[in-house]
Amino acid sequence: MMEGFPMSRLSQFTAILAVAMLAVLPLTARAAEPADAIEYRKNIMKTLGAQGAALALIMQKKVPADNVAVHAQILATTATIALKAFEPKVEGGDAKPEIWTQWADFSKKMNEFAAGTAELAKAAQAGGLAAAQPKMQAALTCRGCHDTYRNQK
Amino acid sequence: MMEGFPMSRLSQFTAILAVAMLAVLPLTARAAEPADAIEYRKNIMKTLGAQGAALALIMQKKVPADNVAVHAQILATTATIALKAFEPKVEGGDAKPEIWTQWADFSKKMNEFAAGTAELAKAAQAGGLAAAQPKMQAALTCRGCHDTYRNQK
Repeated sequence: MMEGFPMSRLSQFTAILAVAMLAVLPLTARAAEPADAIEYRKNIMKTLGAQGAALALIMQKKVPADNVAVHAQILATTATIALKAFEPKVEGGDAKPEIWTQWADFSKKMNEFAAGTAELAKAAQAGGLAAAQPKMQAALTCRGCHDTYRNQK
Repeated sequence: MMEGFPMSRLSQFTAILAVAMLAVLPLTARAAEPADAIEYRKNIMKTLGAQGAALALIMQKKVPADNVAVHAQILATTATIALKAFEPKVEGGDAKPEIWTQWADFSKKMNEFAAGTAELAKAAQAGGLAAAQPKMQAALTCRGCHDTYRNQK
């Protein structure tokens, strides 16, 4: 037994250091990730923005309505995964810290967005533009969230 | 009968002008649209870019793979409507004129892209990341088209 020996103290210190490093390592590994998590959720929000814009062009009769149901479906599908992309508390990008300090409200709004776009997709699938039109305003709640939770550019 | 009378000539001219205007009017009506047609197809390409980027982050293990099948499905669905957005010959934006002068090749490549991403979505749906990974390269043929048909930024 080496208890009391200086080497023992060193061994203990080494052991503690090793444990401490094990505890810290995952954090270090994560330290490379914030940019990835931000890029990932930005790609989801970009998709929502692009599909919302395509739908707006259709609703304004600026382009043919042939794909109204496809766009509504893409929007609704993307909306189902949008909230999850914000679950890791990674501040930065266009996200305001309020997303995480007011998570209950943020997630409620995101779930309502998912429900509204699902309704829109269902209507567009069943009855095309005419059926989708009255659901648009209730579905595209983008601004209700962006005003509170997105940094203005 | 007024043939030979100056008024007749004028009437004929008026008639020709009216027909000419009818022929021109659709073009005039279309003249407000190019920006809309370009914005519309840009939103489709943005969606493809964003979903491709999200899939790349997943494949590189930079973010969790939970939604790999969802992203692959959005990509595949969007790919089914991408070609149609280029059917109106509206030059401008990032689109090179070669899209329309080499339409047979462009549409072949776009159809292959739709087929490849459909394969990818099917694999991801059935077997998650492990099944999707080997289909990625064959599916994401973005560059094969962009090199020829998109203006470099």
